[in-house]
Amino acid sequence: MKLQTADVPSPLPHRQFASDNYAGITPEAWQALARANSGHAPAYGDDAWTTVATDLVRQMFETDCEVFFTFNGTAANSLALASMCRPYHAVICHQSAHIQTDECGAPEFFSGGAKLILVDGRNGKVDIAEFEQACARRAGDVHFSQARVLSVTQATELGTVYSSNELAALSAVARRYQLKVHMDGARFANAVAALNVAPKDITWKTGVDVLSLGGTKLGMPVGDLVVFFDKNLALDFAHRRKQSGQLASKMRFLAAPWVGMLQGEAWLKHVRHANDLAKELSIVLSQIDGLQLLAPTEVNGVFIKMPKGVIQKLRDRGWIFYTFVGDDGVRLMCSWDTTREDVESLIMDVRQCMALTETN
Amino acid sequence: MKLQTADVPSPLPHRQFASDNYAGITPEAWQALARANSGHAPAYGDDAWTTVATDLVRQMFETDCEVFFTFNGTAANSLALASMCRPYHAVICHQSAHIQTDECGAPEFFSGGAKLILVDGRNGKVDIAEFEQACARRAGDVHFSQARVLSVTQATELGTVYSSNELAALSAVARRYQLKVHMDGARFANAVAALNVAPKDITWKTGVDVLSLGGTKLGMPVGDLVVFFDKNLALDFAHRRKQSGQLASKMRFLAAPWVGMLQGEAWLKHVRHANDLAKELSIVLSQIDGLQLLAPTEVNGVFIKMPKGVIQKLRDRGWIFYTFVGDDGVRLMCSWDTTREDVESLIMDVRQCMALTETN
Amino acid sequence: MKLQTADVPSPLPHRQFASDNYAGITPEAWQALARANSGHAPAYGDDAWTTVATDLVRQMFETDCEVFFTFNGTAANSLALASMCRPYHAVICHQSAHIQTDECGAPEFFSGGAKLILVDGRNGKVDIAEFEQACARRAGDVHFSQARVLSVTQATELGTVYSSNELAALSAVARRYQLKVHMDGARFANAVAALNVAPKDITWKTGVDVLSLGGTKLGMPVGDLVVFFDKNLALDFAHRRKQSGQLASKMRFLAAPWVGMLQGEAWLKHVRHANDLAKELSIVLSQIDGLQLLAPTEVNGVFIKMPKGVIQKLRDRGWIFYTFVGDDGVRLMCSWDTTREDVESLIMDVRQCMALTETN
Amino acid sequence: MKLQTADVPSPLPHRQFASDNYAGITPEAWQALARANSGHAPAYGDDAWTTVATDLVRQMFETDCEVFFTFNGTAANSLALASMCRPYHAVICHQSAHIQTDECGAPEFFSGGAKLILVDGRNGKVDIAEFEQACARRAGDVHFSQARVLSVTQATELGTVYSSNELAALSAVARRYQLKVHMDGARFANAVAALNVAPKDITWKTGVDVLSLGGTKLGMPVGDLVVFFDKNLALDFAHRRKQSGQLASKMRFLAAPWVGMLQGEAWLKHVRHANDLAKELSIVLSQIDGLQLLAPTEVNGVFIKMPKGVIQKLRDRGWIFYTFVGDDGVRLMCSWDTTREDVESLIMDVRQCMALTETN
Repeated sequence: MKLQTADVPSPLPHRQFASDNYAGITPEAWQALARANSGHAPAYGDDAWTTVATDLVRQMFETDCEVFFTFNGTAANSLALASMCRPYHAVICHQSAHIQTDECGAPEFFSGGAKLILVDGRNGKVDIAEFEQACARRAGDVHFSQARVLSVTQATELGTVYSSNELAALSAVARRYQLKVHMDGARFANAVAALNVAPKDITWKTGVDVLSLGGTKLGMPVGDLVVFFDKNLALDFAHRRKQSGQLASKMRFLAAPWVGMLQGEAWLKHVRHANDLAKELSIVLSQIDGLQLLAPTEVNGVFIKMPKGVIQKLRDRGWIFYTFVGDDGVRLMCSWDTTREDVESLIMDVRQCMALTETN
Repeated sequence: MKLQTADVPSPLPHRQFASDNYAGITPEAWQALARANSGHAPAYGDDAWTTVATDLVRQMFETDCEVFFTFNGTAANSLALASMCRPYHAVICHQSAHIQTDECGAPEFFSGGAKLILVDGRNGKVDIAEFEQACARRAGDVHFSQARVLSVTQATELGTVYSSNELAALSAVARRYQLKVHMDGARFANAVAALNVAPKDITWKTGVDVLSLGGTKLGMPVGDLVVFFDKNLALDFAHRRKQSGQLASKMRFLAAPWVGMLQGEAWLKHVRHANDLAKELSIVLSQIDGLQLLAPTEVNGVFIKMPKGVIQKLRDRGWIFYTFVGDDGVRLMCSWDTTREDVESLIMDVRQCMALTETN
Repeated sequence: MKLQTADVPSPLPHRQFASDNYAGITPEAWQALARANSGHAPAYGDDAWTTVATDLVRQMFETDCEVFFTFNGTAANSLALASMCRPYHAVICHQSAHIQTDECGAPEFFSGGAKLILVDGRNGKVDIAEFEQACARRAGDVHFSQARVLSVTQATELGTVYSSNELAALSAVARRYQLKVHMDGARFANAVAALNVAPKDITWKTGVDVLSLGGTKLGMPVGDLVVFFDKNLALDFAHRRKQSGQLASKMRFLAAPWVGMLQGEAWLKHVRHANDLAKELSIVLSQIDGLQLLAPTEVNGVFIKMPKGVIQKLRDRGWIFYTFVGDDGVRLMCSWDTTREDVESLIMDVRQCMALTETN
Repeated sequence: MKLQTADVPSPLPHRQFASDNYAGITPEAWQALARANSGHAPAYGDDAWTTVATDLVRQMFETDCEVFFTFNGTAANSLALASMCRPYHAVICHQSAHIQTDECGAPEFFSGGAKLILVDGRNGKVDIAEFEQACARRAGDVHFSQARVLSVTQATELGTVYSSNELAALSAVARRYQLKVHMDGARFANAVAALNVAPKDITWKTGVDVLSLGGTKLGMPVGDLVVFFDKNLALDFAHRRKQSGQLASKMRFLAAPWVGMLQGEAWLKHVRHANDLAKELSIVLSQIDGLQLLAPTEVNGVFIKMPKGVIQKLRDRGWIFYTFVGDDGVRLMCSWDTTREDVESLIMDVRQCMALTETN
């Protein structure tokens, strides 16, 4: 029954551009984990690591927010929305929002039946006119789920970012219709780096009530946060989290990586690195004839249209990545551990595959 | 804004008997984590560590079961139950069952409204006569939630274990009433060690359909499993897990500790150690005049009645532990990292506090 | 394919004591229905009958409450509770409460997972000391559903009534623990008649926040009300009702019977009649040797212990009724249409069956 | 406190074209109600009226289906869908489907979070190519709600009908993707009359698994049915209905109107009448310059585009009706009690308002 050491699995042969969640744990997060793995600590968040991590998040946002650790982004988003919605409410979001496209109905489940109302908008960003129409349409109508929350993704699912002004404008409309504002910040750190602003400038100062703050894609093993800037909305959230299976007993292991990453601003270093490489990749690829950017590359992902033959050839060479939009839109994500060599290696293969495809 | 290294939190000054989830990560689990933190790995369970860990679980149970990783025990229990219950069903369990007393209504939430029907029984174990009555009472009555699952905890919340025979007898009743059998195995490994049986002997061979297999209390950071011996019940479970916010993107970090613990049977070594120390603690304490065992010490917890004055004095000396049953029932849990010195130190303090209390 | 008129079903050969919902529609309710069945009326409650009925309810309670029509008592109770509870909350109620024993988990379903916490108490009434303990136990504990509502049934499931003083005392405890007070008033009218008080005296003046006001057992075809004395709790209730499938399109047919019954106080006449007959039945039966009242007969139901042989003989003679408490507790309900002859006929059969059983 | 008889509400001054639920109860349904209101009857569906009505429904469909009475159409639809869906499933329907546009999220609520996936199609009918794409898209993808049911409305929300062939074609696609087929038959009877087919021809013979069969719009006070042609799907439905607050205690009053309407085929007479008047209205209006039909008039509703000025003038003259599609699409519904005079009166007013508007 005993497995041999030789059977221990190997990682993929080289780094991929499939997703920033293909990457492991950053050195800073790992060292904090190692340090936290010492002796006994009270369970369920009553430990020192959780306290310190929570304080660091408050410092990061320069305000006295309520901070809750959950295991992943789906839970952070869904619990955040559930804390704002009753079952007969609705959440307005972009049609490409992760909460709509990739969470298997988790927002509907955790809220007990709230509806997502989809709007469109360029580059993955909610169009303000469409948003306002969605707010107004059937407001007060007892036969339709009532809009209660605007959820925006920052950075967006197309690798773009909302400016402070864009957020403030959307929030103003939301306020006018008594909607709360939620931000899905699975890649919030990348957006901060890209915009070169303080975290507060694109959250509570521009009307965001609740933020899902991503840790996993940032380089942690597990652990995304729900940050309540409107502290009234956090009422009872501890109970909601527990009932929803999101209260970690050994909380220190969720908190420690945040301490490691927020101290000394390691987080900024890592997302800048990933953003920069994506920018380089984007510039080079977009200059290749036959390739066409689908959205400006503002954070760590390049969204680009490629001939299907090229896509297949890249896969044959061992590259793993996601496609979308009719199967010829390619998403290429850079991570904290992506190297310039990885980027150059991919570019070289793209060039060769393009050449081979043209030849054929 | 930068925190100094000096601010890094310290662990508690010494190990406690509060809970096995006060302990950190075992060396074997940690080394596997370290090894897994290398390069890129596919997300959402499509990685090699998850495959190996899953195979090891199948080897452990000597059968072709379906294995799913979730983040914690509340989720493992609740999703397991939800996979067997519709909202109008009921789960029969002991009145001290964790799913009833410590999960804040998570089974009700995840099932969409299923009811827990409570029965009693000695030493935290479901009484078979009471169980049968609960099965029969109002069966088919459209005005009452229909019993659908028996949930037993192995080892129990009072530190006792069900024998194979006891389980087989309960399962036979369950089958007669078309109930499925769920086992909350937050401390399943401790039970295996205590009974000195093969894992299969107290699961599928004695009628258990679904097992929640605890990893956290065993010495992992996060990660409890749902193991389906009745594979039909696993249909769609991948979707349920995702929608419920329990699908880890970097799954390798949930799987690797299992590889570390199941290889070479490290898990058995650790639970035997904890069980043995609890036995020693139990024997000594139960011989002290004025202390009285509340249940036989069969795994890693001692449940004992103490004078309230002694309880307070122990707390004043820095001991952390839980009380229950009218505040004079004390629970003392041993962990994988508890040492003989910890036990002796506690015993000495108990003796001294008893002496001081008698003197007063 | 056409059915003949001769096939039209006949009613039971004589009136029964099984339940007040075996009775049909009172003449006053029927006449209002007939009057309402004329021409067109706006749907969903925007009609004149609903307005008038709502005003009559406000007059009945002498206060400006919010009134909502639902189809039945299960819905009225469950939606009322759901409007006060999040999924991680709990409702404290008597262990014999209808919401616990006869609604198939509807409160759990509509609230999305709230728990019922059961307490005991004599004659079907919540014991105040047990209630206070249940409030205090685990208050604030994140691992347990938090008590949020006290639900009392007036009249109780054992045919008794809470006095104004009893209600006020319970409400005072509830307030101290920030609980809301719900009253399941499936037979509220019977309680008003029995206590000879104004409806306000046992509702908002003694701390009831929300009342489920029964119409069906009062002699209507369908239609129980949710009456919010705490109008803040009614916020969004119109949407909750709609989403829950309880918004009638032809609302006039739910409202009209209430107009018929509340005008001229027909409701009081009918419940006094039923209460009086139950009292007579109770007095006679309780004087028969071998029969024993299980609770004082305060409204329209007699709860009495009978030899099992007698129960069987009564059934053989065509009497339909419910048993409980070990199958020898009999419930005998009087309705608005029960006659003195029905009562005498039943008494005669009881006497004869008792005599036959003794002889054997 | 007593209201005077003079205060009894009056109906609207004349019949409207707002909705078929503005109409009251048909004579046949009323007479059955009157007959049913006699003596005592067992509760919760164990009465003779429910048995007879159920048998008549089975005769109507010429098959041994399972029949359940619920209070209204929202409940019938939502419970039907919930019986086929787990929370991680999805229902594919037309974007104008009532379950999407007018039930305030009831399907999501009763299913515990299932998603509606919207497709388009001409004249309110699901386009088969779009439907097939929706089936195929993301099938098996753990990150997205899995399509499980096709829900079609017959007659549609635009007053059109699916032919038997259209239904069979959709069902064939559904079968290929393992989807079940639900039919929202709020106006099913109108569709039967329009198509001049047997009810079986557009239900189980063409692949419909579950039908919501509308009674309210047909001329009953309350009571829509869920009819399971796939009897396996009805397993446990009695419990689901009870828990969902849809089990009537005085069931005879839901069942009797069905007996009245199904005996002698009164239902067909009434829907033919309404369909015929709508056809007449449609023909005349569509010949008026400046008015434009939005969909063919196949059942009892005319959907027509009118100048906004005309719409306002009609309202000023006391006509009540709904608008949609940018506020100049008018819906005019005929009911069982609409008369030729009503139609002529409306036509005259439309002509006059058109003339006045042109003059201006």
